Amino acid sequence: MTKFGFYVAVVGATGAVGTQMIKVLQDRDFPIKQLTLLSSSRSAGKKIQFKEETIVVQEAKPESFEGVDIALFSAGGSVSKQLAHEAVKRGAVVIDNTSAFRMDPDVPLVVPEVNEEDLKNHKGIISNPNCSTIQMVVALEPIRQKYGLNRVIVSTYQAVSGAGAQAVDELYRQTKDVLEGNEVRPEILPVKSDKKHYQIAFNAVPQIDVFQENGFTFEEMKMINETKKIMHLPNLQVSATCVRIPVETGHSESVYFEVEKENVEVTEIKQLLSTSPGVVLQDDTREQLYPLATTAVGQDGVFVGRIRKDLDEDKGFHMWVVSDNLLKGAALNSVQIAESLIKLGLVRK
Amino acid sequence: MTKFGFYVAVVGATGAVGTQMIKVLQDRDFPIKQLTLLSSSRSAGKKIQFKEETIVVQEAKPESFEGVDIALFSAGGSVSKQLAHEAVKRGAVVIDNTSAFRMDPDVPLVVPEVNEEDLKNHKGIISNPNCSTIQMVVALEPIRQKYGLNRVIVSTYQAVSGAGAQAVDELYRQTKDVLEGNEVRPEILPVKSDKKHYQIAFNAVPQIDVFQENGFTFEEMKMINETKKIMHLPNLQVSATCVRIPVETGHSESVYFEVEKENVEVTEIKQLLSTSPGVVLQDDTREQLYPLATTAVGQDGVFVGRIRKDLDEDKGFHMWVVSDNLLKGAALNSVQIAESLIKLGLVRK
Repeated sequence: MTKFGFYVAVVGATGAVGTQMIKVLQDRDFPIKQLTLLSSSRSAGKKIQFKEETIVVQEAKPESFEGVDIALFSAGGSVSKQLAHEAVKRGAVVIDNTSAFRMDPDVPLVVPEVNEEDLKNHKGIISNPNCSTIQMVVALEPIRQKYGLNRVIVSTYQAVSGAGAQAVDELYRQTKDVLEGNEVRPEILPVKSDKKHYQIAFNAVPQIDVFQENGFTFEEMKMINETKKIMHLPNLQVSATCVRIPVETGHSESVYFEVEKENVEVTEIKQLLSTSPGVVLQDDTREQLYPLATTAVGQDGVFVGRIRKDLDEDKGFHMWVVSDNLLKGAALNSVQIAESLIKLGLVRK
Repeated sequence: MTKFGFYVAVVGATGAVGTQMIKVLQDRDFPIKQLTLLSSSRSAGKKIQFKEETIVVQEAKPESFEGVDIALFSAGGSVSKQLAHEAVKRGAVVIDNTSAFRMDPDVPLVVPEVNEEDLKNHKGIISNPNCSTIQMVVALEPIRQKYGLNRVIVSTYQAVSGAGAQAVDELYRQTKDVLEGNEVRPEILPVKSDKKHYQIAFNAVPQIDVFQENGFTFEEMKMINETKKIMHLPNLQVSATCVRIPVETGHSESVYFEVEKENVEVTEIKQLLSTSPGVVLQDDTREQLYPLATTAVGQDGVFVGRIRKDLDEDKGFHMWVVSDNLLKGAALNSVQIAESLIKLGLVRK
């Protein structure tokens, strides 16, 4: 804790993302005067170490937000819907890592490297985008700025930790069962609340979140709609196929995009991305250098490689984008939003 | 063995695909008078059961093909380059499952459901396409026939068995090492002969085969060039991103395609594919029905699902295509080629 700092609350403090939020707040030396850790009644009472202090996790209630300046929510959409406005009512700025408010026109949806300025319109709640959206827009935004952007087609290779700690347990339990020749009994993935569950170990499951009437999943629609909102491109052609694969942490994405400008060369794009905020270029096919989930995990950056021009379409390019879905995809981006709010003087002090 | 049948040889009989070829020949009751199993000197002497007979594997030599009518090759490109012409010289028809002759204009590249007629132009060697290409063209051909086809963008989720038995061993060894907290030591994947090796367990590796000057891998170029050749569409816009994931068997593909015709509806495409040769439609999002590697393994079909129209492009559609890469992707397609040759009277008898 620092003498001059903010009253910060983390809601969902014992979950996969909450745990990372606490770690990111500590690692970045976020100016905290007091840290309140909140959870469901089930996890209340747990003790979590933060710097030199041991903090007891409390059950999240409306009163928990009295005096809180910044509340980081990551406890599921229903908790956010129930408590975010309570926190705002008490003067807190809410940074919400669920899909509850993302498409609300009154709620800025922010990736600081892309649209930090949107924070200025906040009315108490700011949404943190979906993990798979964040890493893609960080890579696309510098390209949009310099060459324009007409079209995006993405296929994802998403890690299991995006579905929470229970899903990670299931991945390892199933993996062990396959190695030992035991029967695999899927219970959580692809969607815990959905009717059917499928094996994730040694498999690729083309369903993340529930299906919509149009045949796309909600995860795919999140990528489509959130990308348009964050990049301020309502008419951008975006489509997504979202797939879960047996990786613990680190989302990978095969991204095809078309720029507006003609005759853009791959070397220019590499040069541009090598100095773009949040991006780490890993692209040297002679040295077999390209992003991998195993090397991205635990890192802050959005790793981009395998950039190449489409063989038929002059304005079309392909790239491979990898990032830690719990960090830049969730906890880190939320804390970066809080840092931007402070920098822009948008939190009470 | 049958009284009226062919003299058949399998080259690479002890490998991952060779083993499947022998099984497919048996399961489909292929008319065999005598089966010769060939391998490198290292595997010669092994005994393999075929129906009621125990066959001793012999070292493949030019003389091995004396009297052979049909030779199925799957022992790597260098073996095919060395021995395929020797087999042809002795009167055999060679069905080659390596990339050695695929792009040779004198060699038909055949998927029987798509271009069986091309077999009529054979000069002794017929190539079996790359596994990831076969399943995609089986799904695309009925669409091309009915609606025309302008463009394909595919991202693959490829199984480790496509890289051979050693790679499968490596996947399971690494998986065990990760579960037990041991250090992972990659030695085979992504490409055994390449400089660097990366972990495949709990990872997604965007390199299959070696890189070309244009930034695409050889696997990606195979998908691009073979698709054009098989479908007789030299000007088709095709691009591919090929990725290895920790699945033992069963390639999955996220395929975006654009048809020529306007106003095609998803229901029409589903109707069409439900009766297309080689295709099994698995597409009912209300019932969470879609193709999966774990359900496709051991099956003959090309499974297609998640068919949906692009949200912006009337002529654009997305689908998910899964097949057993050792069966339809390799052994089964090779045996089907042999069956087509017999049907068309293109093997000596």
